[in-house]
Amino acid sequence: MVIPANQPIGIFDSGIGGLTVAKAIADQLPQEQLIYFGDTAHLPYGDKSTQAICQYSTRISNFLLDKGCKAIIIACNTASSFAYHHLQEQFASKVPIINVIDPVIDHVAGGPAEQCVGVIGTKGTIGSDIYARKLREKSPSLDIRSLATALLAPMIEEGFVDDEISDTVIRKYLSDARLTGIQSLILACTHYPIIKSQIEKYYQGKVTVFEAASIVASAVHRQLQSLDLLNEALSEMHRFYVSDYTEFFEKTTKVFFRQSIHLEHYPIWDN
Amino acid sequence: MVIPANQPIGIFDSGIGGLTVAKAIADQLPQEQLIYFGDTAHLPYGDKSTQAICQYSTRISNFLLDKGCKAIIIACNTASSFAYHHLQEQFASKVPIINVIDPVIDHVAGGPAEQCVGVIGTKGTIGSDIYARKLREKSPSLDIRSLATALLAPMIEEGFVDDEISDTVIRKYLSDARLTGIQSLILACTHYPIIKSQIEKYYQGKVTVFEAASIVASAVHRQLQSLDLLNEALSEMHRFYVSDYTEFFEKTTKVFFRQSIHLEHYPIWDN
Repeated sequence: MVIPANQPIGIFDSGIGGLTVAKAIADQLPQEQLIYFGDTAHLPYGDKSTQAICQYSTRISNFLLDKGCKAIIIACNTASSFAYHHLQEQFASKVPIINVIDPVIDHVAGGPAEQCVGVIGTKGTIGSDIYARKLREKSPSLDIRSLATALLAPMIEEGFVDDEISDTVIRKYLSDARLTGIQSLILACTHYPIIKSQIEKYYQGKVTVFEAASIVASAVHRQLQSLDLLNEALSEMHRFYVSDYTEFFEKTTKVFFRQSIHLEHYPIWDN
Repeated sequence: MVIPANQPIGIFDSGIGGLTVAKAIADQLPQEQLIYFGDTAHLPYGDKSTQAICQYSTRISNFLLDKGCKAIIIACNTASSFAYHHLQEQFASKVPIINVIDPVIDHVAGGPAEQCVGVIGTKGTIGSDIYARKLREKSPSLDIRSLATALLAPMIEEGFVDDEISDTVIRKYLSDARLTGIQSLILACTHYPIIKSQIEKYYQGKVTVFEAASIVASAVHRQLQSLDLLNEALSEMHRFYVSDYTEFFEKTTKVFFRQSIHLEHYPIWDN
């Protein structure tokens, strides 16, 4: 580890949903500069092949390292599922790499051993079965029920939140027989914190709902601290890059980062 | 025009929704071989910039010409909005280029001159205002009402058709004040033929619903005939390529092409 502690933290996602993770890190570690990259040219990763996701993630990680980042946060469940080991092999000798899955696994597996846990996410994340496999490794007596809920992310991006459509879609997915009897539910997509309260309302307090953003931010804090990589004071502004720019993305950042931010177009794929 | 009549027709889309257009062409012109390219690596185009869409469309058109295609059909409303003139400039001296918008404009503008016409489509298509502009050019007294209905395409891809969710989403969009009083409605997205009957049901026969696939197939028929480019008998099988392959795409083709087809992975962007 040769990168100084006053360098930025790199965060990437297939789009702007990972801003929920960036926001949680900014809140917990206000002295850290963030460099965010949203691969909006390829959004959503949920439908892409493993090969494509590994290729995109490698290129973006190199971009973040070129910007001097001292850590790389994979703020995307699909990329965390398919590209984490690929990135570890290439970059772990240079910087710590943190995905959005393992901190949540540790958190949930540290709870009651006999519980029934639901997992919802994109087709890519659920199809990879990574949450169920990792949870069973850590806590074999957990009963795990997974369900792909692919329409939730575009629904949230379109602003269908706290309304009849989102209530109908959420009810349709959560009433699926595969989730019957769960005691806790993992929101395995960085978009879903935005509808966490609607999901909690559906369950009327009977199911504990876990979202990754704050759990991952705590893990980042711990890991930087253990490596003596925590910055002392924020000196530079956060930077937010996207591989393809549209006004819609700029407008939608407010949903995920809770404040207006400026997106810079960096056409990483044009070279 | 030097390409012989027994060569294939090239069709492309950002994904697999354009298969509704391919299907209509296959039905109306059963003697023609089709070469389809779905740019699933970049799906959906609706959120991409003009520059990106032009660049992708040029590369795909070159691929179709390399395959010997005698015509290029842009089976994607977003690419038709943003890249048609760009492709015309480059390729119109070699092959006819047909988009999915102009045939529909001609069809609707040929109807009653005083009617109130609604247009629904992706953010890209509606944001470009291309239907309203083109309709007004052809028929200035039309009253045109446009509305972006971005959740419909992912909803259809996820198989939410003829159910409570699609009824709720369709009702939410179509009851928007901006569509009040329309007498006809243009479905300006190649996915929407799949929910045409639900939309007609919502309007209870009071609104005429136009979808592009069959109108475009007729235009292709006329144009090939006028250029003496109609084939006499089908000799080769259709080919369907995608820039990124997943099982989900292969499975979903059935929704749009009404029969199972085999997708071939052609990683056009890896070079």
